[in-house]
Amino acid sequence: MDKQDLISMGTAAQQAAKVLAQLDNAAKNRALNAMADALIAHVDDILAANAKDMTAAQAKASKFTDRLLLTPARIADMATGLRQVAGLADPTARADQAWRNEAGLLIIQQRVPLGVVGMIYEARPNVTVDAAGLTLKSGNAVILRGGREALASNQALARVLQAALQAVDLPAEAVQLISDPSHEIANEMMHLNGYIDVLIPRGGAGLIQTVVKNATVPVIETGAGNCHIYVDKAADLDMAIAITVNAKVQRPSVCNAAEKLLIHEEVAAAFLPKIAQALRDHGVELRGDAKAQAIVPEMLAATDADWDTEYNDLIMAVKVVASEAEAIAHINAHNTKHSEAIITDNYAASQQFLREIDAACVYVNASTRFTDGFEFGFGAEIGISTQKLHARGPMGLAQLTTIKYQILGDGQIRA
Amino acid sequence: MDKQDLISMGTAAQQAAKVLAQLDNAAKNRALNAMADALIAHVDDILAANAKDMTAAQAKASKFTDRLLLTPARIADMATGLRQVAGLADPTARADQAWRNEAGLLIIQQRVPLGVVGMIYEARPNVTVDAAGLTLKSGNAVILRGGREALASNQALARVLQAALQAVDLPAEAVQLISDPSHEIANEMMHLNGYIDVLIPRGGAGLIQTVVKNATVPVIETGAGNCHIYVDKAADLDMAIAITVNAKVQRPSVCNAAEKLLIHEEVAAAFLPKIAQALRDHGVELRGDAKAQAIVPEMLAATDADWDTEYNDLIMAVKVVASEAEAIAHINAHNTKHSEAIITDNYAASQQFLREIDAACVYVNASTRFTDGFEFGFGAEIGISTQKLHARGPMGLAQLTTIKYQILGDGQIRA
Repeated sequence: MDKQDLISMGTAAQQAAKVLAQLDNAAKNRALNAMADALIAHVDDILAANAKDMTAAQAKASKFTDRLLLTPARIADMATGLRQVAGLADPTARADQAWRNEAGLLIIQQRVPLGVVGMIYEARPNVTVDAAGLTLKSGNAVILRGGREALASNQALARVLQAALQAVDLPAEAVQLISDPSHEIANEMMHLNGYIDVLIPRGGAGLIQTVVKNATVPVIETGAGNCHIYVDKAADLDMAIAITVNAKVQRPSVCNAAEKLLIHEEVAAAFLPKIAQALRDHGVELRGDAKAQAIVPEMLAATDADWDTEYNDLIMAVKVVASEAEAIAHINAHNTKHSEAIITDNYAASQQFLREIDAACVYVNASTRFTDGFEFGFGAEIGISTQKLHARGPMGLAQLTTIKYQILGDGQIRA
Repeated sequence: MDKQDLISMGTAAQQAAKVLAQLDNAAKNRALNAMADALIAHVDDILAANAKDMTAAQAKASKFTDRLLLTPARIADMATGLRQVAGLADPTARADQAWRNEAGLLIIQQRVPLGVVGMIYEARPNVTVDAAGLTLKSGNAVILRGGREALASNQALARVLQAALQAVDLPAEAVQLISDPSHEIANEMMHLNGYIDVLIPRGGAGLIQTVVKNATVPVIETGAGNCHIYVDKAADLDMAIAITVNAKVQRPSVCNAAEKLLIHEEVAAAFLPKIAQALRDHGVELRGDAKAQAIVPEMLAATDADWDTEYNDLIMAVKVVASEAEAIAHINAHNTKHSEAIITDNYAASQQFLREIDAACVYVNASTRFTDGFEFGFGAEIGISTQKLHARGPMGLAQLTTIKYQILGDGQIRA
């Protein structure tokens, strides 16, 4: 592939997007259900392709094999996911607001699709199906660039989805996969201004930063989560233990898991031995600052690098702070603007934390693990934005749309 | 200046943004009124600095001298503008929505400032004051990089504004001006990820495309307007004349002025001679396709390049189309996604145009000149977005904000 091929894909995607933008909800749902049926009907083809990827990954002793593996149950889950998306409300079937201006024009702020969405992601083939379903439901075409390890799996999935689209008389180019996994082509994709309306990277911090630092196409930065729990001096300590354990160990590999524990010094002596025990019972390695080590000496020493590290693993760094202000300053200096929580029964402390923490999601007395499109009630999730432009926090279907002002007049001219 | 100086400015801007984000509306309005007072108090200093810029511009026979010129009246207008911004509602004083999720968490979608806004603009010194006022009211710090021609004027304005901020105990770094007008520093600014949350270019198409194609900081693309009027076969022709003349000649240099006129062939013979006469009476040069020239032979021939050109001048290209579908296809192929209008009394034609045209603002029976933050009732305008991400169409104070989810629990953990 070269840049010209990408431009051809972009042009075809734009043409497909024009068709998708005019579909009603029933037509989009027919397509989603046809895609789901087709996945089930072609499960053997998909598994055969996935077996090739798995063989290659095992030969290289890749650490991605679990993410890469497809099974009949995982494929059935993908199909179920598409049917669930069909059941959601059409995000383009509404106007945000409408008003008459001074000149008497009726200004309608109508939701419309973004156009062409680009996705750059790593080893999980389910992203191929998820992204295709969510972009189609929101009326967008999608150009997918998955990881090299999953290429055969993704090609099989894309073939099945495209055939399903054609079977319901929709353009196959609504869902296109880039079959060249080279960095050169990914880089060209990041500069496909005029063809891709938004680029969403999904994956590790390295991938996301590469896209953010190189792309000139508008990007939504997702995913990195160096999330903190701050246990205030007025915390209910039992609640603090339950929330900290949940946020750390319920699923440590994901971006909304907590990585850091800050404890007010007035409760550190009472709280730290208990939480250290509870976390160790779940296999968590603790790394503390000097004050934390003074209370729980068997803790490893945290280094400066720890405060900026997203472990995605059963590791947690612990810091004892002299005040809520110190906790807030530390969080704002080291967080990735994802999700932060305070545990407190003090009203003023809760309000200060909500007001001063700079992050997509700020919690009082709840686990950071709730930062999720499904938990928020969006019914879907294409990613979690850690930037401030366009979308912040969990992104569902609404975040894959933009607005168009439709303005109804009866001859108005400007004075 | 070098990159390190820019990083220092960015760091100071972030610190100032933290202060601004916590101000209430009264404190922000005190600052805006103090800035307005200071402009009036220092009018002589500002005029003296502007005289230096004007002398240099006249020596180079610059075409920018009118945009560059400051007068006591223009400085008074800037001050009035700041006081008007003070009178607007605080865009961060509201939550968009709030709901309880299944787990019982109260999720509040609170409006908050973006953080640090970067502006890159050309010769108009009033942008310095406008941008400072709008960003301050929305709780953002701003880093300004104006044109080389206006450097002395902008420096004087920034000094006055910074002193006014300090006089009301706010950080001067809330409004910073880059005093090095080199392209190298502008380019570094476009890559100041992590320090600038959004970059808004204001100016000609060349400047905007340079920023869009080079910046890795998130950009809001503004301004280019190759706007069309389509006169349908069911148009009220007198209304079509009034709207076309208004959209073309009321202020031809701005982005929401119409540049192209498309006419359904069934009304071309009746309409074209009349509108040609009306536009010529206002000094408009017409360039037509072959069908238009067949009706009004004294029209110049339009070239292929005309269809993609924003004249910003008293020039209009005219095309006769066989159908509304041809008009829509032509507009979507050549427009800059800014503002498009249909003149029709046919309901189905109006709905098709509203639905199928891809632009920020789509009008039925009104002039494209209404695409403007003030006309929309926003009370302010920082630019007109022609992109789809974050903001589309006229941008007021609300478009300088983002959201933060504030989530109130009572011990919830994720199952």
